[in-house]
Formats: sequence, C-alpha cells, structure tokens
Amino acid sequence: MQFDLDDFKNPCNDRFILSKGHAAPLLYAVWKQLGKISDQELMQLRTFDSNLEGHPASRFPYHEAATGSLGQGLSVGVGMALAARADQLPYKTYVLLGDGELAEGSNWEAAELAHHYKLENVVAIVDINRLGQTGETSTGHDLARYQQKFAAFGWRVLMVDGHDVNALANIFTEAENCDPQNPVPTVILAQTYKGFGLDQTIENQPGFHGKALPKAGLSGILQELTKRFPGFNEPLPEPVILARTCTEQYHATQNASTYCAIESGSESTGPFPVRALRQASPCAKAPEDRQDERGEQDERAYQLGAPIATRRAYGEAITILGAHNPRIVCLDGDVKNSTYSELFEQAFPERFFECFIAEQNMAGMATGLALRGKIPFVSTFAAFLTRACDQIRMAGVGRVPLRLVGSHAGVSIGEDGPSQMGLEDVAFLRTIPESIIFYPCDATSTHACVALMSEHHTGVSYLRTTRAATPVIYPNETEFKIGGCQVLRQSPNDIACVIAAGITVHEALKAYDQLCAQNIFVRVIDCYGIKPLPEEALKKHAHACQGSVITVEDHYRAGGLGEAIAAALINDKIHMTSLAVDKLPRSGKPEELLAYEAIDAEAICRAVLESLRGYRAVT
Amino acid sequence: MQFDLDDFKNPCNDRFILSKGHAAPLLYAVWKQLGKISDQELMQLRTFDSNLEGHPASRFPYHEAATGSLGQGLSVGVGMALAARADQLPYKTYVLLGDGELAEGSNWEAAELAHHYKLENVVAIVDINRLGQTGETSTGHDLARYQQKFAAFGWRVLMVDGHDVNALANIFTEAENCDPQNPVPTVILAQTYKGFGLDQTIENQPGFHGKALPKAGLSGILQELTKRFPGFNEPLPEPVILARTCTEQYHATQNASTYCAIESGSESTGPFPVRALRQASPCAKAPEDRQDERGEQDERAYQLGAPIATRRAYGEAITILGAHNPRIVCLDGDVKNSTYSELFEQAFPERFFECFIAEQNMAGMATGLALRGKIPFVSTFAAFLTRACDQIRMAGVGRVPLRLVGSHAGVSIGEDGPSQMGLEDVAFLRTIPESIIFYPCDATSTHACVALMSEHHTGVSYLRTTRAATPVIYPNETEFKIGGCQVLRQSPNDIACVIAAGITVHEALKAYDQLCAQNIFVRVIDCYGIKPLPEEALKKHAHACQGSVITVEDHYRAGGLGEAIAAALINDKIHMTSLAVDKLPRSGKPEELLAYEAIDAEAICRAVLESLRGYRAVT
Repeated sequence: MQFDLDDFKNPCNDRFILSKGHAAPLLYAVWKQLGKISDQELMQLRTFDSNLEGHPASRFPYHEAATGSLGQGLSVGVGMALAARADQLPYKTYVLLGDGELAEGSNWEAAELAHHYKLENVVAIVDINRLGQTGETSTGHDLARYQQKFAAFGWRVLMVDGHDVNALANIFTEAENCDPQNPVPTVILAQTYKGFGLDQTIENQPGFHGKALPKAGLSGILQELTKRFPGFNEPLPEPVILARTCTEQYHATQNASTYCAIESGSESTGPFPVRALRQASPCAKAPEDRQDERGEQDERAYQLGAPIATRRAYGEAITILGAHNPRIVCLDGDVKNSTYSELFEQAFPERFFECFIAEQNMAGMATGLALRGKIPFVSTFAAFLTRACDQIRMAGVGRVPLRLVGSHAGVSIGEDGPSQMGLEDVAFLRTIPESIIFYPCDATSTHACVALMSEHHTGVSYLRTTRAATPVIYPNETEFKIGGCQVLRQSPNDIACVIAAGITVHEALKAYDQLCAQNIFVRVIDCYGIKPLPEEALKKHAHACQGSVITVEDHYRAGGLGEAIAAALINDKIHMTSLAVDKLPRSGKPEELLAYEAIDAEAICRAVLESLRGYRAVT
Repeated sequence: MQFDLDDFKNPCNDRFILSKGHAAPLLYAVWKQLGKISDQELMQLRTFDSNLEGHPASRFPYHEAATGSLGQGLSVGVGMALAARADQLPYKTYVLLGDGELAEGSNWEAAELAHHYKLENVVAIVDINRLGQTGETSTGHDLARYQQKFAAFGWRVLMVDGHDVNALANIFTEAENCDPQNPVPTVILAQTYKGFGLDQTIENQPGFHGKALPKAGLSGILQELTKRFPGFNEPLPEPVILARTCTEQYHATQNASTYCAIESGSESTGPFPVRALRQASPCAKAPEDRQDERGEQDERAYQLGAPIATRRAYGEAITILGAHNPRIVCLDGDVKNSTYSELFEQAFPERFFECFIAEQNMAGMATGLALRGKIPFVSTFAAFLTRACDQIRMAGVGRVPLRLVGSHAGVSIGEDGPSQMGLEDVAFLRTIPESIIFYPCDATSTHACVALMSEHHTGVSYLRTTRAATPVIYPNETEFKIGGCQVLRQSPNDIACVIAAGITVHEALKAYDQLCAQNIFVRVIDCYGIKPLPEEALKKHAHACQGSVITVEDHYRAGGLGEAIAAALINDKIHMTSLAVDKLPRSGKPEELLAYEAIDAEAICRAVLESLRGYRAVT
C-alpha cells in the first residue's frame, strides 16, 4: 500500500478497510508498528477512555470505515473505488474479509457491482482460515469453490499461502498490476490457519475465536513462534510492515504529490494526517467549493396549487443542486423512474450509479462514496430501505453523512399493497444516533429539505417522499430548517392542534375546511422536521389550542410521529389523540386505505369532535 | 407439480412460491384457469375488497408466502424444502424468480444453504427476460454468467427457451429427476422476452414494466398472439396448466395419499384445501400434539439469586421445550455459543440448522419452515437481526409465526462496542403488525416467555436477551403472560413508579435499595411484556405513585419502552422521566456504559430525587 503516514487526509492515499472488524487488535498493532500508537495506548484496548474500541469505530483516528457487522466492508470499498474512478485519483482500495463473512449475500451484491463498473482499483483479500466463531464455515478450506464463485462474478482470482510472507509480497505486486485491456476487480484468496504456529491443540482448532490465550503460557508461545518464524519477536523495519510499501517509490513521489482537500464533515479531523504516494494526481475533478449550492433558489418556481408528487420534487431538487455541486452523486436500486432520480441521471449520467436491486450494497457503497468526499443520495422505495437497516445502522456508528430518500411511503400508495408500503422507515431512522429526518408535504418544502440534506455533513439524514401528487402549498420564498415545522392554519379560537406530516398534511387541511363549516377552528401544523422534533414550537401551539393535540401520520404507530410527540409533551398535561396505521394494510385506492386506517380527513374531524366533547364535559 | 386442488392443506402437496411477486396477476390467472377463482373475482384485482392484492399476500387463500419485496422467495423455498426433508415428506418446492432480483445477495445466501443441506427437492426457475423495472439488468441475456454463478454455488443448472412449452415440459421432468447419488438443488434458467409475441415496439423493449397495454389495442393483440400461438385464446385442458401435471399419476396416488394435519396457526384456513398427489407419505414424523408443551414446568428449577444470563436461559428453555414438542426447530447464524442455542443443537442436532453468517436467508428460511408447520426459533445478536428487517417485515405482511431471539441487547454488552449492541431492535419489532415482544430480566421469566412464544402461532414474536449474567429474581411458580408486567417492589408510600425491563430491572432494584436507605420509596415494575404493553396495569401503578413515572431502558430512546409508555399514558396527566440510550455508545465496561448513557441505578436515583423535588415544589 502507498500512503503518507503524516497526511491521512490526502486523497491519493490507498485505502484499507478491515471488513472482518473483530480483527481490530491486528489493525491497532499495525498502527503501533507504524509509530502512530504508543505501547501504552495499545494496552488500553477496549477500555472506556481509549480510542481503540472492540471493533474499529469512528473514534479511532485511522479507521477507514466503522466495521464489526460482517459482510459490509466490500460494499464500502466498492464505493471508495468508484469515488477514485470519478475523481481520477490513483488510489487503490484494499478490503480484508474473513471467509465466514462471505456467507453474507451483501458481498455478492458488491462483487457484481465491482464487476459491472469494471473497478480494477479494488483488491479484496479473503482470510480463509476455515473456522467461523462456532465451527467450520460451509466451504472450509475448499479454495476451489471460492475461486469458482469469484470467477463467476467476473473477478480475477489470485491464490496464496497466507502464511508465506514472500508469496504474499509477490501476490500483492501481481494484484496491483491489472491488465488495462481487461479491467476487473481482484481477489486474493489466502489460505490460513487460526493460531498458525502454535501447537496442535490450538492451531486450526475450533473453540479459540475471540479467546485470549492464558497469560501463563505467553513466554512459551513467544518462544515457539520465534523458533518457527525467525525475527518474529523483533521490531520490523517500517517499510515492510504494510505489505509491499516501497521506500524508493515513496521518496520519488512524495514531492510530486498533489493535495486535494476533502471537505466532507465525515472526514477524520484527528491529529494524524497523511500525504500522497502513488504518482501525482492532477485532481482535475477536485471537489468544488459549495458556496453556490444555494444557487438553485432562482431555479425552483413551483406554482401554488400545482399537483406535484414530493418524490418528483426530490428528483428535480437533486438535479438542480447537482448542477451547482459536483460532489453530489445519486444511487438507484432499479426504481429511478419511481423515485424520479432518473432526472438526475439524465442531467449527470456520469454521477449516477445504478446499483440494481441490491439495497444493502447500495447503502454500503454510498457510505464509501461519502467517506471519500462525495455527497451521495440513495433513493429507493422506503419499504426497501429496510433491506439495508444494518448498513444504515453501521453508517450511524461511523458517523457517516449517508443521505437516504425513501419514496412510496405509507398506505397512500394504494393498489400495490403492503409489501411496497414504507411504514416503519421513520421508526428505524429515528433510532440512528444523530440522524435527521424530513417528511415534507409539497414540492417547495421537499426542495428545501433536499438542499438542507446536501449541506448536512455530520450524520445520516433521511427524506420521506410520497407517491401521490399533492398540491404545492408553500410560496417559493418560504424558509425551512432542520427540525422545523410550519403553521398552516391558526386563529385565536383554536380548540385543537392537528399535527401532521407528508400526505396527512393535506388530510388535515381538508379536515380544517370541514370543521370551519361547523364553526370549529383548529390549528394545523406541518411537522416536516421529524427529527430533531420542533419540541418547543409544538408545546407552544399545543397550549395555545386548549392543550388538545391530534397527531396524524401515514406510518405504523410504533416509533412514528405520534409517539415522538407524546414523549416530548408527556409532562405538559395535554390531551392527545394519535391517528396512525394500526391495521395490516391491503391493496385498494389510496383514499380507501387512508379511511381504513383512520388517518384521513374524516378521522381527523372525528378526533377533533371527540376531543371537543371531552373538553366541554370537563369545562 | 403435483397437488390436490381440493386439499390445499395437504402436506404432501408440491409448493410454488412466486418470488417475483409483481407477477401476481399471472398467479391469479393460473388459479382462475384451475377453476378456483371466478372471472368476476379476477376482474376485482387490486381493489379494496378483493383478496387479489397487488402482490401475493396472506388474504389470497392460495398464497404460499407473501412476496413483493424481491429476493426473498428462494430463502422461503429453502426453508420449506428443509421442512420436507425433516418430515420425510415427498413434496418439491418450486420458486419462480425474476432475473432482476438475482442482484439481491439474499439469493446467494439461500443458494449456498441449499447446496450445504443438499436440498435436491428445491427447483428454482429464473425468468431471464433481461429487463428490470427501469432498464437492462447487469447481466442481460448472458445466460452463461448465470450458469457459472449457480454452478459455482453447487447447483445443477438447466437451460431452456422459456417460450417453448414442450421444452419447458421436458425440462421440468428433468428437474424432477435428480441423481440420488449427487443430491443438489436445481435451477432452470429460462430465457424469455418481455411482451413476447407482441410487435417489435413492445417485445423486448424497456418502458413496459408494470404498464397495462392500451385497451383499445386489445383485440389486435389477442389476434396477433392467437396467430403466433395456436390455441392461445382458448381454454386449456386442466392437467396441462401447471406444467407437467400427470393425470394418470394423479388418480393412481390420490387414494393412497396420507393426510397430515398441520396445526400451525399460519396455515391458511381458507375454503380451498388440497389433497396429496405424489406417492403416499408415511408421515412418520407428523407433528405431534402439543398438549405436553408445558411439561417443562417440572424441569426448570432456577435458584433465586443464582446468576444466569437470560440468553443462557433461552438456550435451556428451548432445549426443554424441544423435548416435548418435535415441531420446534432452531436456526443459528454462527453465534450459537453466544446465544446458547448450542444447547438445543447438542440435544437435537437433526432439528438444529446452522445458517452461517447470513441473517437474511436465516429469517426467510424460518418463514418457510413456519409455513410448513414447524416452530422455528431464530437466534442471533439483536444487532444482526437488523440485517433481516425486510424479511421480518414481510413475515409480518404474511402473518407468519416467525420467532426471533436477539441476544447481546444494549450497551450493557460492554467492550465489544456499538457495532455489536442491539439498540434499535425493539423499535423495529414494535412496528410489525400483530407482533409480540418480550424482554425478560431473569432466567425464570425468560423460560416462561420462550414457552409463550412457542405457543403463539398468529404472528411475529420477539425475545430480547442480555449478555450479562443476572440474578434469578422470580420463584419458579411465577406466572407470566403475553403483555404482562410484574410488580417487584411496592408500598403505600411510593412517590414514583420506576418501569424497567431486562438489564435495567436490576439497576432499578439497586436504586430502590439506595433510595430506601434515604426513606424514599418507589414502586419497581418489570415490564417484561413490551408489546402488547400492559397499559392498564401501568396506568394504575402510575396513579398509585403520585402520578410520577420513570422509565429506564437499554435501548435507543426512539421507539423504545419509554416512548411506548409515554404514548400510552399521554392523557393521564402524569409526570414522566425517560432514561434511555441517547449517545452513540463505545467500548468499555458494562457499568461504565450504563453510567455513560445515564441508565444505571445512580441515574434512576437522580431522576427520582428530581421528580421528588418537582413534586414537593408543586405541593
């Protein structure tokens, strides 16, 4: 590998992802050998104040990506390799996988994509030690099966004895030199033995996964290893440590190296930067400043009342933003005509990545792209984002600015039925630490939310969009913010506060009109900022409306808007009715389903009238 | 395929899973041809009152499994094939996949498992029409690539022109006859063209996915098809409809067929049963009556105060239950020594299925096993169940009694760090319609919860277990129920009600002791039933404790116990403090992490004292 130890942020550095994150002590030991971690720090492994966590996480300054949930590293690596391709940067991405984790299908999603995009700059290394945590893998040491699989997925396969250092050095050289006429990703299958070099009761035996050997036997073990591997227990010369690092090349290129600032908020700002090694890169496509990201203001001009689906507004917004910020890229899971990300593809085909029907890898790739300074928007049906929950969870652990857009939210999609309805997306995304969530109801607010997401670099963000066309209700100059809400209707005589988001905002407005006709006045709030929740504003409006609140959402009750608001207002002595999806939905017309789940205008009116009766009974 | 149209529940029937669920109209059309759906019903497709939903769901009496989220059918099929093997039943399982959905890695997880278990009774058919929803798949019509992939995963591969009916009939015969010396699963790769038989502006062209052709052109289209396929528009003779159904065999076997009742609550109870066709099965291992499932009562005898992790108690409970109910099976994702499902394996190796590190397929397989009358328990780390959220979601859509057990919940696992901590599992599982959730705090209650799950056949159930050993607090004769809670400490002078679950119950008990020393009395509730929530009991206790409630949970705030309780008590004018995981966790000692997230005994004491100050200030 080639990188500058003193300039970790240098975009020309090779990348190394430890997909088998449980081998973290090995990663830390290497950085100790490289002189970046002290002996003392190393001995603090897994303690509360140490950055050396049980699995590589964002607190470790040299972490390339948070790992520890298996089968995710290759997707992240493919995303990084794609970023290198897009930016014409010379780095290679190395991913070290365990053989056990190859059972995760996400690896084969990544393998197919790396083949599809001809990413010759990815090198996967599989540590085939035969043993998982609890026993032998399904493939054991049958390297031929692994070879056939990777070959079938279009990869170049190299095989090596993983304990032969010279053979490894040679194979890494071979891996680096890919036939330019046939650009394919490379995998190195390394046959290894757990506990190699120890006695026969330990080497290649199950039962030692995650187990420290008894301290009493340490000197004997070190003796045995030293006997078997001369020089084992002596400090290694630095250049040898990271495989084939070539000091000559190092000195030849370091003066010529180019520095490209990566401004992504997710980029480590630790005290350990790096400098470029591989041949100098022109960085022709270096990320531009994002000062004019807001230039889209003039370009969006939605007419009040015009029926435009928020999913379509997302596609339009990202396309306008994309013109002003070349770091924005878009990833699709074969639904671009439904999510309207096809508009972005038409404008910027080179920044649009079709990931096919493989959401896990799509989310992992986006993490890799984000970690290399891109601003990726991942869009698919909200329902199908549940396929990538673990990848999204790990993006949260890694504090990655992963931007997700889930369309076709709620029962309001209608005829396609429950398998296509996103009804748990808000609950899941709300759990991710430091995440932000938007659920706008019209094109204008959607556009603003997408712009806010493009500028939010400190964690996972999520936009929920709707299938149906809904009327534009906001003038173009309306201001929106993270964690905001808008008051759509209010009077001094409001007897209840109806809090809605997305599609139910329009039901709330219909209910308002019906209630007005009966001389009953309610406040209507568009709570487009689901997380963080605009708690203070909601409290204020609740108290201004006789302490009566009605929430209404096209999402399952658990973990949705209603529960979030109940938790926020629990100590405010208010009265609240939450309308949410409680019954397993079915196919039908959108309006039939909104009525079936009691989240339509009529249900809101009923709730207001009941609340009014309760209020009158009390007063 | 061989099955009795008049006995859909017959366990000897072949199974057919439409993994490409969007082809539902085709499935319905076949059942119409079989005389089980009327023309009138067929024309109600996708309407609110029809059972013919946009994608096959549980309301359709002939649905084999709910589909519509792609890439899940093969896992379900592999589970059904495993059930056939276990019960020595002769049926085959056919799964029809689209080529687009082969991008989902879950298929390759299923492919590997089918190879591993030598399931020669699975036949997958891939409809390779080249076109996804939005464009060409990554493989197009390159059948050789698909062939290589399936062969690399150990499958027998057959290729066919998907439009040649005679060739199809022959290939299905070939597929059925597997070499007994080399039992491997079979895949039929069928090359097809979307819109085959229509004119060149439609056939094999993108842009027609999910689009109805204009009604005006219908007669022309029918004419064209009739010209190209003589007899196209005429009723087909029934035996021909489902591929190679052989009437002779039908009559020869139907008298000999054996009926084995499948008692699973998930089994369709629609008016359309079926009878066996393939050779008579002895049904030697027919599901036994579950009258003695409770026989374990005598066998569990935990000593009060003994430190036993709830994950271990799960392993012990399932092993005892397994002895009394042969329908119970167990699935593991290479963590059986952590979840203690290894105890079940040691007792019943033939009913233990190692699924390796592939949680999506594990959940899908369990769905298949459950649909064939097994009682599968799926156990892994709670964190890694997030890998299978989409499969769990679809089990909910299908109303499948999928039983999930997530271990290593919460920050209390300590040193392994955030990637291994299940902190969003309750939020996600709560969203699943009709799901039930248990989070017990000791071995006795865990045992009871596992028994309750084994008897719950009407939907998804979830048990959350803890890594650390916790003392047994319940006598063996204690009664537990779905949606229950237990009062652990109470007095007439309680000034607050502390509601905890799992690990935090023990923190609450510690807090109780510390507060007692200050003459402050609180009620302590073990809310082991998270869903349904014991709302009435919680309300009663809240009001009996000055209306002051403190919830404490080792789970992210969003969608957890605190929010569930806030939503339940919002109209009860109580004061509530919710302690939950708010900060991104890290590695460290369990007690350090509980303190860091402010969910330990000290945090509870602080909350009680603050609530007391607030109360005194008011009164």
